[in-house]
Parts: sequence; structure tokens; C-alpha cells
Amino acid sequence: MENSPLKVGDSYEYLFSFSQEQVNAFSELTGDFNPLHHDKEFAAQTPFKEPIIHGFLAGSVFSKVLGMEFPGKGSIYVSQSMSFLRPMYVKKYYKAVFTVLNIDPTKKKGTIRTQIFDVEKNKQTIEGEAVIINERFVQ
Amino acid sequence: MENSPLKVGDSYEYLFSFSQEQVNAFSELTGDFNPLHHDKEFAAQTPFKEPIIHGFLAGSVFSKVLGMEFPGKGSIYVSQSMSFLRPMYVKKYYKAVFTVLNIDPTKKKGTIRTQIFDVEKNKQTIEGEAVIINERFVQ
Repeated sequence: MENSPLKVGDSYEYLFSFSQEQVNAFSELTGDFNPLHHDKEFAAQTPFKEPIIHGFLAGSVFSKVLGMEFPGKGSIYVSQSMSFLRPMYVKKYYKAVFTVLNIDPTKKKGTIRTQIFDVEKNKQTIEGEAVIINERFVQ
Repeated sequence: MENSPLKVGDSYEYLFSFSQEQVNAFSELTGDFNPLHHDKEFAAQTPFKEPIIHGFLAGSVFSKVLGMEFPGKGSIYVSQSMSFLRPMYVKKYYKAVFTVLNIDPTKKKGTIRTQIFDVEKNKQTIEGEAVIINERFVQ
């Protein structure tokens, strides 16, 4: 149930992909025109070979899911960490996995492991943790 | 100088502000329609009173500055942490402060403290750390 209490070990998956148009829109919106995300010749000289998605655009999936789906509405974001383990590219499918690590019911606060995996290669691209306040973190 | 080597203690400041239009565009782009960012009545019932900026939109300033200005071009993002200490609002001025905490010259890797302050209230809104690989982290 969407509003049922969460317990340690509960998890949630979310499949997604980004287009070059979305990467361009993110650059326009944030002013982040790092050539790694747009310049094919520049990217070709890096270990990534091709332009990569902004880590913050990929990571925004955490914010979206945590705020709208798991735990969902009413979430207050306390913190988020992200380690960018491997590059992410447009038009590839990725899976975000959320797992409840611990809960402090008195503060309605939970720590959620946040991971992203390349679906095709089955390799992890982002590892992180979020701390969220939400009514679903009760006993 | 833009490409000179960095040393521990070097710092950089960046002033910014976001509009409601940018918040709306971020929601459209990322699919993050958490009502905290749009719904005035919903936000009025929270401790924030008014709709707040997405933490990931605010944090994208870190990505922009780290990738384009300090250390700048060629930056590879290894990790970023963010603690959301206080809400951030549209049409308010904020200052991002970047300070080099330590450098591993053999890996061209540096840890940079990343902070955001509300300029008017002189209160910190985000605390974090970034790890970056960049040619400027040499000895």
C-alpha cells in the first residue's frame, strides 16, 4: 500500500533513461555546460569516449522517487550522498534501487540506500545514501 | 590563473538565484513534481510555509562550478554529499562557497568542501563535500 509503514529491508525499483534533449535541457537550466556532456571530440579524449549524462541529472531520479513514490508524498530531504562509479550515457536503460537501511521512528526518519545500475551491463553506476523524513517511517 | 595548480585552502565563491520558472522547468525535466515545490497550500502546512527549491536543483550549482570554473574544465566527478540544512526559496540570493580540503596529487584528486549560504540571512542552507579529479590537483 502506498502509505503503509515502511520497515528495514523494504525496497523499490525504478527504470529510466535520458535522451540527449534532456541532457541539453539540463545544461540550459543549470548553466552546466561542462564539455564532457556535449562535446563529442572532447569526450573522445577522456576515458568515457562519448558524452556522458550529468551526475546530478542522473541523481535527480533519487529526488523524484523519494519525493513521489518511495517513501513518497510529504518526504523531506535531509541528506543525499552519491559516488559516481561508472559513466552513464543517453538512450541507455538504468535501474534505480532503493532499500531501507534503518529507521528512527521517533523522528520519522529513515536511511535509504540509493543505487543505480546499467541494465544492459548489469554494472552499478551510482552508489549513495539518502536520509528522509516521512510519515511512513513510524513503528 | 584559471589553470594554475590548486592548493589546500584555496576557495571560490559563486552567487546565484533561481526563479519559479526554473523550478517548474526542473520538475518537467526530471519528473519530480513533489508538491513541496509547487503546491502553495501543501507547502503552507509544512515547516517551510512556502514552496521550496528542489535540493538537486540547488546542488546542481556544485556540478556547474566544479565542472566549469573551480577547478573547471576537465573535472571528473567522483562523489558529492549534500546535507540540506535549511529550505531554499525562489527569488532569494544564495552564495556557494568552495574550499579545497585535501589533495592527492598522484591521483590528481581533490576533496572540496561545498557550502551554500542564504545571503540575506547569512545562514547556511547546504553542507557537502565533493571529490574531483582534475589536472589542477598536481603538486
